[in-house]
Amino acid sequence: MSAYDALMEYQRETEALSQVAGRLGWDQETMMPRGAADQRSEEMAAMEGVLHARRTDPRLGEWLDTAKPDGPVAEANLREIRRSYDRSMKVPARLASEIARVTSRSQGIWAEARAADDVAAFLPTFAEVLSLKREEGAALAAGTDQTVYDAMLADYEPGTTGAELAAMFGALRPRLVALRAAVLAAKAPAALERTFDEAGQLALSTDLALAFGYDLSMGRIDKAVHPFSSGSGADVRITTRTNATDPFNCFYSTIHEVGHAAYEQGVDASYRLTPIGQGVSMGVHESQSRIYENQLGRSRAFTGWLYGKMRDAFGDFGIPDAEAFYKSVNRVADGYIRTEADEVQYNLHVLLRFDLEQALISGDLALSDLEAAWNDRFLSDFGFAVDKASNGVLQDVHWPVGLFGYFPTYTLGNVYAGCLHEAVRKAVPDLDDDLSRGDTSRATAWLRENLQRHGGLYMPRDVVARASGTEPTEGPLLDYLEAKFSDLYSL
Amino acid sequence: MSAYDALMEYQRETEALSQVAGRLGWDQETMMPRGAADQRSEEMAAMEGVLHARRTDPRLGEWLDTAKPDGPVAEANLREIRRSYDRSMKVPARLASEIARVTSRSQGIWAEARAADDVAAFLPTFAEVLSLKREEGAALAAGTDQTVYDAMLADYEPGTTGAELAAMFGALRPRLVALRAAVLAAKAPAALERTFDEAGQLALSTDLALAFGYDLSMGRIDKAVHPFSSGSGADVRITTRTNATDPFNCFYSTIHEVGHAAYEQGVDASYRLTPIGQGVSMGVHESQSRIYENQLGRSRAFTGWLYGKMRDAFGDFGIPDAEAFYKSVNRVADGYIRTEADEVQYNLHVLLRFDLEQALISGDLALSDLEAAWNDRFLSDFGFAVDKASNGVLQDVHWPVGLFGYFPTYTLGNVYAGCLHEAVRKAVPDLDDDLSRGDTSRATAWLRENLQRHGGLYMPRDVVARASGTEPTEGPLLDYLEAKFSDLYSL
Repeated sequence: MSAYDALMEYQRETEALSQVAGRLGWDQETMMPRGAADQRSEEMAAMEGVLHARRTDPRLGEWLDTAKPDGPVAEANLREIRRSYDRSMKVPARLASEIARVTSRSQGIWAEARAADDVAAFLPTFAEVLSLKREEGAALAAGTDQTVYDAMLADYEPGTTGAELAAMFGALRPRLVALRAAVLAAKAPAALERTFDEAGQLALSTDLALAFGYDLSMGRIDKAVHPFSSGSGADVRITTRTNATDPFNCFYSTIHEVGHAAYEQGVDASYRLTPIGQGVSMGVHESQSRIYENQLGRSRAFTGWLYGKMRDAFGDFGIPDAEAFYKSVNRVADGYIRTEADEVQYNLHVLLRFDLEQALISGDLALSDLEAAWNDRFLSDFGFAVDKASNGVLQDVHWPVGLFGYFPTYTLGNVYAGCLHEAVRKAVPDLDDDLSRGDTSRATAWLRENLQRHGGLYMPRDVVARASGTEPTEGPLLDYLEAKFSDLYSL
Repeated sequence: MSAYDALMEYQRETEALSQVAGRLGWDQETMMPRGAADQRSEEMAAMEGVLHARRTDPRLGEWLDTAKPDGPVAEANLREIRRSYDRSMKVPARLASEIARVTSRSQGIWAEARAADDVAAFLPTFAEVLSLKREEGAALAAGTDQTVYDAMLADYEPGTTGAELAAMFGALRPRLVALRAAVLAAKAPAALERTFDEAGQLALSTDLALAFGYDLSMGRIDKAVHPFSSGSGADVRITTRTNATDPFNCFYSTIHEVGHAAYEQGVDASYRLTPIGQGVSMGVHESQSRIYENQLGRSRAFTGWLYGKMRDAFGDFGIPDAEAFYKSVNRVADGYIRTEADEVQYNLHVLLRFDLEQALISGDLALSDLEAAWNDRFLSDFGFAVDKASNGVLQDVHWPVGLFGYFPTYTLGNVYAGCLHEAVRKAVPDLDDDLSRGDTSRATAWLRENLQRHGGLYMPRDVVARASGTEPTEGPLLDYLEAKFSDLYSL
């Protein structure tokens, strides 16, 4: 057997075990009885131990040294295996297990601190997490021309740098701040003002998942506290949630997760359980969830169809016509919370975190000054003050569990979605005719053909560039947002 | 670290991984989307590969050679690890993987043959399975004083032999045949004659699970085609099923699985994720499921309570009073199928399989003569002829997947349940007062205290002997059955 074949056979088992670990995570959020939490921690730790041993197996290094790829698929597989192996070998086992231990504990301490709006109670643990992650970042950056932050970023978005993102985001921010101010100065559309039963919401959310091409023969939908998509290949599951007064939360969470899941389900079946058999980066993943949710799902044409479905399901709910419904779906309002933000404001929340986490990692910002820096920046961009830490610096789980370099992929995903949306509209000029009938198939088929099926074959930026026909920039997203909300708010 | 501590630390991870593999099996039967089957096979195979490597790790042999146990818990842990290690080392890897491959394929071929009532279509595959399992049995028996069949039996019921079981079952059979004939000659009680809605059945089955002490904070109930219990320690899940015209199927399946699950949940919490942290054998497991289902659940006292619950749930369903309901629950009728058999006839189905499988393994019976042998024996014990193979030799999945030596544990479990029931009744003389209020707690607490909590601490027969205060024999089961059904049928 050739070194490449031996490597791929070994890797296939690793990918299968990784899917098992992922399914365990899904189970934990959906099915696991609460009394099983301690035992589950040990089960997860044992799985992680198995996976870590496989990812640092010395044979990997030997195979990688001698494997001869024959074509782009093999080259991409080797690229992904090498990236994972190099990363695993650079981080001392002692540090990796310390990070696992501290971030696991940290999540609970953060949750308590957030509930009490008590930043000080979290700072000592936060300092431990930050210190360990900086140490890990330094180990990853050693011997490369990357900054520590770049090395962290590469875990989520390989092939980009903090400087590139800073330039892109720097161009976004002023136009987003201006658009936000103009929109909020205009008259707000009506909000929903009644309750919507859970069964009706769940039934319609399944209709929406199917309308966006989610394949239930290779997936399932369950309820969870936080919606997520889980798994790759032939078993990609999503979750949703309901809120009696806000059915849009359920519907657009579902469409968002279907975007993630459709990407995983859409990867070429021959890549399953191989290193390229899944979405290539967090940013590209988010581009799919966002274009499904926003550019398609919140379009005038699609909301026209959804309006009819909601009236069928819930009767008259106080919105007089499809145009008013479109405005209601796209309502912009002040808010503290990133995950609840509308299209106009969402990226401002991300840019704030991106700048602050870079400063934390570089040491330009001391952890003791983080809350003040957050609150200053929030006031500056949003025009009103943070009232409590749970609405501010303690709101997200990312930093407490050591996810530095993750936040910018959300906005990068929106930027990519802007580029892809422009291309889809060119490829399918009469797409709105379809969307107004609830038919997304020509759009989702285009995304599958041009982007999703490639999985990890191309690097993140490359696959977006190939699909959209041009190097990705923030321009299409900004143009789209300004046009959409100028129209909606008669600016 | 001492050899014992090192061994136990290693083993704890193995147990945790084994729980993960078990959960994957649960998922497959309850939650997995159908299109994920192929991918799941690879995931399961990868988990099995990991577990096999751990179970044959040479360090196990070194630790076992040098570990010094300090007390009965450590001794029992070493006993279980040694048994598993010796077994793994005796079976050549080539044979183990061949058995896995053939039995996996065999199950599908058997299912098709059963659907077509075509024994001949299954015989070639069956011959492969039998040959491989005989080879495995011979490898396991080599160097011991066990017969090949004894070695197979030890996988499910360590510490017993085919000869011991043959003596016990030989004493059972004539009295069971006689009881069956007498009962079927008497007037049969009324059967249920309407339909019962699924939601009502599932709600009442949950009430029954709780009534028998199932702890939902460490478990959950889902629907599956075949009811089962899965997992150990703090995460023990059960499944049930419904049949519109036969709610007893749902109710008593649930109670049966609660018996298995209560045993797992009831093991001393300090044993969790250790070799003795689970039920000690199939026979002892079945003793718990059977005493819950039959001696307690189908008692006159408990069915009196259930009658009221069913009337609350379903209104008048045509059974006039609690005594008629008790008779209906315990109705004895002709049937071909083991899993649907009543208390009187169930063990006759098992004894038939026990004798035939011993003859197959010893070579006294050729596979080509199996169907005729089955049909002759069935006619002899049940008094009517098998009409088709799906009602006869093809009805069970056990042999097709290589489970030889498993069937007798069902009847051994019934025998053990008979012994334990006699002891419970002595310990709690007024138990029927409780049961007539749906309160099983004194009985289940007795079982937990005297048997369940020990997990694998004692050998199977020993734990039953300790709990019941006497060496287990078939006498109490026979006395119980004859008394119960003589009364019910006025014999």
